[in-house]
Parts: sequence; C-alpha cells; structure tokens
Amino acid sequence: MADPWSSSLDVHLGWSPGEGRQSLADAIRAAIRDGRWQPGAAVPSTRALAHDLGIARGTVTRVYADLAAEGYLLTSQGAPTRVTTAGTRPHPSPSRPATEPASRWTLRPGQPDLSAFPRDAWSSATRRVMQHAPGEVFGYSEPHGTLALREALARYLGRSRGVLADPGRILVCAGFTHAISVLSRALLDLGSAELAFEDPSMWMFRDIAAAAGQRVVGVPVDDDGLQVSKVDSPAVMVTPAHHYPLGVTLAPSRRTALVRSGAMIIEDDYDGEFRFDRQQVGALQALAPERVVYAGTASKTLAPALRLSWLVLPASLVDPVFAAMSASGARPSVVDQLVLAELLESGAYDQHVRRCRTEYRRRRDQLVAALPEHLAVQGISAGLQLVIRLGCEDEILAEARRRSLDLEVLGPHWINQGDREGGIIVGYAAPAKHAFSATLATLLATLTEVTPGSC
Amino acid sequence: MADPWSSSLDVHLGWSPGEGRQSLADAIRAAIRDGRWQPGAAVPSTRALAHDLGIARGTVTRVYADLAAEGYLLTSQGAPTRVTTAGTRPHPSPSRPATEPASRWTLRPGQPDLSAFPRDAWSSATRRVMQHAPGEVFGYSEPHGTLALREALARYLGRSRGVLADPGRILVCAGFTHAISVLSRALLDLGSAELAFEDPSMWMFRDIAAAAGQRVVGVPVDDDGLQVSKVDSPAVMVTPAHHYPLGVTLAPSRRTALVRSGAMIIEDDYDGEFRFDRQQVGALQALAPERVVYAGTASKTLAPALRLSWLVLPASLVDPVFAAMSASGARPSVVDQLVLAELLESGAYDQHVRRCRTEYRRRRDQLVAALPEHLAVQGISAGLQLVIRLGCEDEILAEARRRSLDLEVLGPHWINQGDREGGIIVGYAAPAKHAFSATLATLLATLTEVTPGSC
Repeated sequence: MADPWSSSLDVHLGWSPGEGRQSLADAIRAAIRDGRWQPGAAVPSTRALAHDLGIARGTVTRVYADLAAEGYLLTSQGAPTRVTTAGTRPHPSPSRPATEPASRWTLRPGQPDLSAFPRDAWSSATRRVMQHAPGEVFGYSEPHGTLALREALARYLGRSRGVLADPGRILVCAGFTHAISVLSRALLDLGSAELAFEDPSMWMFRDIAAAAGQRVVGVPVDDDGLQVSKVDSPAVMVTPAHHYPLGVTLAPSRRTALVRSGAMIIEDDYDGEFRFDRQQVGALQALAPERVVYAGTASKTLAPALRLSWLVLPASLVDPVFAAMSASGARPSVVDQLVLAELLESGAYDQHVRRCRTEYRRRRDQLVAALPEHLAVQGISAGLQLVIRLGCEDEILAEARRRSLDLEVLGPHWINQGDREGGIIVGYAAPAKHAFSATLATLLATLTEVTPGSC
Repeated sequence: MADPWSSSLDVHLGWSPGEGRQSLADAIRAAIRDGRWQPGAAVPSTRALAHDLGIARGTVTRVYADLAAEGYLLTSQGAPTRVTTAGTRPHPSPSRPATEPASRWTLRPGQPDLSAFPRDAWSSATRRVMQHAPGEVFGYSEPHGTLALREALARYLGRSRGVLADPGRILVCAGFTHAISVLSRALLDLGSAELAFEDPSMWMFRDIAAAAGQRVVGVPVDDDGLQVSKVDSPAVMVTPAHHYPLGVTLAPSRRTALVRSGAMIIEDDYDGEFRFDRQQVGALQALAPERVVYAGTASKTLAPALRLSWLVLPASLVDPVFAAMSASGARPSVVDQLVLAELLESGAYDQHVRRCRTEYRRRRDQLVAALPEHLAVQGISAGLQLVIRLGCEDEILAEARRRSLDLEVLGPHWINQGDREGGIIVGYAAPAKHAFSATLATLLATLTEVTPGSC
C-alpha cells in the first residue's frame, strides 16, 4: 500500500478544519504573502494536504483552482503546482549581501586550484561509503573523529610526512581555525595563556587564538625561519616546512633548538605536501612527539570548503584538547570524514596531490621567469604562494582592484608594525588551469603600472 | 605523456641519495619499525620512489627485493607491494579505546533510525552537486553558511514550520551544540550572561552553554510546558513544540506570555517535523521574529553524523552571532550543505521525513499498547522518544545493561535535583526497523524484571 504521508511536502499553514473553504484559501494567501510559501516553490499535492489537514481532497482541489485563478498558484499538467513568482511579495532582501562580488582574476594566497577539485573521485568515494558504511556511523559521532579517518591519517601522515601518529592521539576538527581555537582553549585550561606566533604570520589565526583567550606575541622571522632564541612563551605556533607567508624554511639547527626550547610547539604543516625542488623536509613532530602538536588540513590539498583539519597530539594534551573540542560544540561531518578516509586509503588522495604538485611547480616556474628583474622573489620552491618584496602595497592593491585581480599583501600579517616590510603574496595555485596565463598577465600589468613610478 | 608524479603514493623516508643501497634499506626498515609505514599499507611503486629520491629505479627494485626477503615487505604479482603484517612492530595501541562497546539493542533517545538514512538519495544528490556546482564553492566559505542552503532552508522552514526566515538571517552551524556554543558566546558579548533552561532539559546543552561562559539556571516544567511566569533571565532556551525530555507541549497562553516576557527566546525545534496526532504546531518564532532565535537540526530528520544545524536570528543578533561564529573557528562542510540544499529542493528530504514519521508513529503506538497498565506514558504523540515515569532509575539501568539495552533515564536532565522525579526516556526511533519488535521485547522484559519488585 502506498504510504499516504510520503507523497508530498510538509507544510505549516496555521489552519484547522471546520473553518470552511474561504478560510483555507485565506491561510494559503497569507502564507504566500508572508513569504512562508516562497515564489517558485512547489506546494503540497492536493492528496497530501487534504490528508494532513484531515479534510476532503476535493476541497483542496477547489481552493487550489481558486488561487490559481487569482494568480497565487501556477498549475501545469504533469508538474507540481507552484507558487507563482509574479504578484507575490518580493523575497525579503538579506540583511547583508549574500556574497562579495567576485573578482575576475584570483591570486588569493593559500587557496588551491578549486577547478581541480577531484569531483568524480569524491562522488565515487561517497557512493562507496554509502554502500558499505555500517548504520552506526550515522549516529552521534566520536568527538575526536571517525576511527576510519584517524587510522587512515595515521598511515598517511607517517609515510608522507614522517609523523609519528597514533590514531588515539589524532583529533579531527571542522577546519584549521577550529583546531587553533580548540588548542588555544586547551592550553589556557592548562594555565598556558600566551601563544607566540611567527612575525609575520597568518593574521586570522592570531585573531582566533586571541578570541579563545590567548595573549598573542610575535617572534621575528629571518631567512632561516623563526628566530628560535627569541621565543619566550610557553607555546609557539610555527610553519617550519614553508613559512607562511614568507616562504622560508626553518633551518636544521633551529629545528633542533626549537624542540629543545621547552615550549609546546604547534607545527602548522599547511602545505607540507608541496615542495618542488627536492623531497619534502619531514615534519618537526617526529623529532619530539611529546613537545610538538602536528596540525594539518585538507584545505590546501583538496578544498577549503571541506572544513577538515587534524591535530596529532602529545600524550599530555590528549585529554585537555578532547575536552576543549567537546566544549566547542562543533564537529566535522562524519560522512566527509569517511569519504576522505576512502580517498586516502585508495590512493586517490596521493594521486590528486601529485597532479597538483606538478601543476603548481610549473606555474611557479612560469611566474618567476616572467617577473621583471628588479623584483625579488623570496622563499623556497614550494607551496601555493610566493612573496614579492615591494614597498607600495596600497598602490598595488588599488591597481589590482581596478583590474579585478584578487591579491593579498604582507601588511596585515605583521604583528609588530615597526618591523614590517612591504610585499605582495601571490597565490599562483588559485586560478583555474586555463586561466593561469591570463591571470599572470594581469599581475604583470599591475606590477608594471605601479612599480616603476611609485615604489 | 604520463605524469611521473601522479603514479603513486607520497612517502617521507628521511633519506638522501649518495648514502648507498644499504642505507635506503635501513631507512625503510626504520620507517616500518617506527610505524610510519604501517602494516598492510601499500608502499610507493619502484618507479615513483626512484623518481622522488632521484635514484635509479633498479636500486629501489633491489632494495624492495631484499626487504621482501627479510619479511618486511610483501610483493605479489599484479598488486601493489605492501608492508607485511607479521614481524613488524605492533600497531601502537590508542591512548583511549577507539569506540565504546556497542549495546546489542538501542533505545537511545533523540536518535533517529540510522538504518533508514537515505543513502541512495545522499549519493545521488552528491553526484548532482559535483556535476553542477561552480568551482568557487570549494573555496573558503561564507562564515554564516552556503547561500544555496540558506535559501533552501528559508523556503523549507517557512512552509513546514511557519518560520519567518530570511536567508540573510540564517546561520548554518557544525551541529546543534555548536549553535548553542556560538549563541551563548554572542549573548555574553552583548552582556547577557545568564541563560535559563527548562528543568529538566538536555544536560549536554547546559554544559555547552556553561563552557561558553553562561550562568545556567533552571525553570520548572509542568504539563503545560515551561512555567513562563518563573523566567527571570535575559535569555531562555525552550522546546515549545515537544518538550525534551518530558514530551509536553507549551500551552497556547504560555506561548503568548513567553514572547511578551522580554527575554530573548531560543526555540529548540529539534523534532518539530514529528507530530503524529495532528498537524504540527507552528514555530513560536513566527509570533515574534525579533525576540525568538529559531534553532533546528538535521540530526533528527536525517542523521546526527551530518553535524548540520541552523539558527534563524532576530536582526539584533545577526552581527554578534556571526562574529561569535567566526571566533569559534568551526564551520560545517560546504559539500554537505550543498547536498542538503539539493535534498530540500528536490523534495527528497520531505519524502524521507514523511516516511520516518509514519514509521515512528507506528512504533510509538506499538510501544504504548504493549506497556503494562501501571506504567504511565507522559507527553503528546510526537517525536522520537517518550518518558515512562518510574522510581527506580538505577535498577532499570543496571537491568538494561545486563540485557545489552541502551537506554537513558531522566536523572541527569534535572537541574534542581530536589525537583527530580524518576523515569526512563525511551527512544523508540533509534532501532532499525527489523529490530524494533525484539528491542521492545527486551525493554518490556527489563521493566517486568525490575518494576514489580523494587519500585
């Protein structure tokens, strides 16, 4: 027998039977005028609405016919009846713009080529997860992450980044900023209330740590990376493989000095997979797994939109960080975690990373070769962006905006504004492959327009 | 031309060329012993590893052969070479158990039938999203949620729950507890530092609010729901459609009194879709959209594992709540948001809800009919659980555990322990359809074993 409840849409009309035909029509008109039944939306079938309201189907049919005649509804043979789009109250305008107007060209740093997102692999992996996952996975999840993903990450991080990872010490978060917030809170709960950042460093991460109650201080960076001898905080966040945004690598002697400094180290390995000139430098974490929190993300390798990141924790931080995670209330989707685990285990993730690495290396080479000689590129051949030093950030930004080019400057990344040097951060990974050359030409035109005159 | 980088897995060995054949073998042995190359994991192809390390492929082939001979690797024709599972260091044991031992039977309240998750619909919707979504959606997302989902929710909540929802006032969170945490923080930032909860209410939500800095107070509930006249806090969280856990509905006069009370109201509409005896009562929010935060979730209709929830905000709270959302660092997956939008717009979501509603109604009727006469069921015919009043919670829990039945009691839901009455919360939605009758029999046996003697 067909299930009478499964045939149509749920509606709420605020109407009860016994009030007669006119009144149901009134209720529907009000729903349309209020925007509860929105322009273009399908309305319930006559059968379902009659069932829900406990009235005869013929009544609903007549009311629908009346409302169609009045222009509220649009009926058409063989298709669901819909709310008409003409003559109804306009859709209330959002209290803020839905999206910022997009630039035509993007060189946004830290963003991978979104057009390369492995859509087919994601679809297929989702289908496999849906076919094979036991029902229990759809329930309330383990707060520290789905076991299948933690196991897959332990294997992946071990072989690709040299991380000593135990699934029981991994925490999966809803984005990298979530991981920073949770860590900051856990450190605070342990009495560690000051967090040092590299100067410069990603300003947003400092804001997140500060919002979680940490006092933020800066430690300068030179060509050998963080000036470790100047670290004087109980905890420090560092990008040893490829400094963000300057692109330098933490020198071997400083790696050793850092893990011996006594500070709790947060190793932000945001783009450790992308080194072009030689095999990657392994994670700092392997040198001192009880002093280093390893932090990684799928935002650079797959897509920021997945909001998936992970921490590998020293034993002493497991309980405090898991507690802070629970207190945050947020957890990443289990479905996405299972899909990522599937991609990691099948090798599709590695395949995607390698394809992107080849492409990004090619782009970086093309960019460096095309730059005018007087512009110096900083940092190693790695990652998703490079820095070009130049003085006139504001002029460059203004010119880029005129050309509809999305670009960032060093400015907001500095902590101590006295130390600041000017520069632009060129995210060469961001454009779609077909658009890269045109984007590069736009960048060069921007630089040519500004630099000779004003910097 | 085949891309030499896309043929295999990424590995980190901490080894450089020029150290000779023995040394590469040593490096791989160390990686296996350390657990960085884990038992059973595929190793890189000889071609890829040789390329990565900048050495001859023949060298890698010989080293692999040696290691296979030594029992470290397992080679087989036509399949990837893998780390052997015998003779390697045992996988480090997680510092905590991976999962709690599962009960055989579950009546966990608040949990939908996980076996009913619409796997095919989710797969198909994912495929459609992957086929049609523009590349930009994979980038850094709008912090308040993907526009497509906010628009779909505005339409859905309007027609199904009578909510006056504008996409610009909707915030999509990474689970219901995330929404509570963010709201609590925003209220605190506005100087509103005390949040009243129904007594009893979901203990976990109170913990989350307290962790975010709110002072939690309790307001008693009777057969007409929250005793509104006793609310004396600047903000109150309430479950008007179907009180959790007691199952009563907020009486019409109290609905009116509540929206006139001056308190900021958080309407937890966790299971508003599931009313069995009549058409649902519309959301409180429509009575006073500037005094009520409407809060909903996909956890009851689809699956908790999605970690998707939403708030519809009064204008005065939009900016503070969006700011608190950013500060939390966490955001839900954009991919899942797009898939949910697709399910809402295609009608698949409604269809699933209606199918579940029919099934849960049948189960509730069967449960109520099967209960011994001396046991009183409280609350309206709605939702995913009902309460049975009885005195001896501890004895029931112990007996249920003996029978491997997952059950909850009222105990921890009370705020003022002086007011507490005993009872069990029976989540009849939780079992798989085929297991419901056996689960019910286990419950009845548990009740028969305990109640006649000790309560």
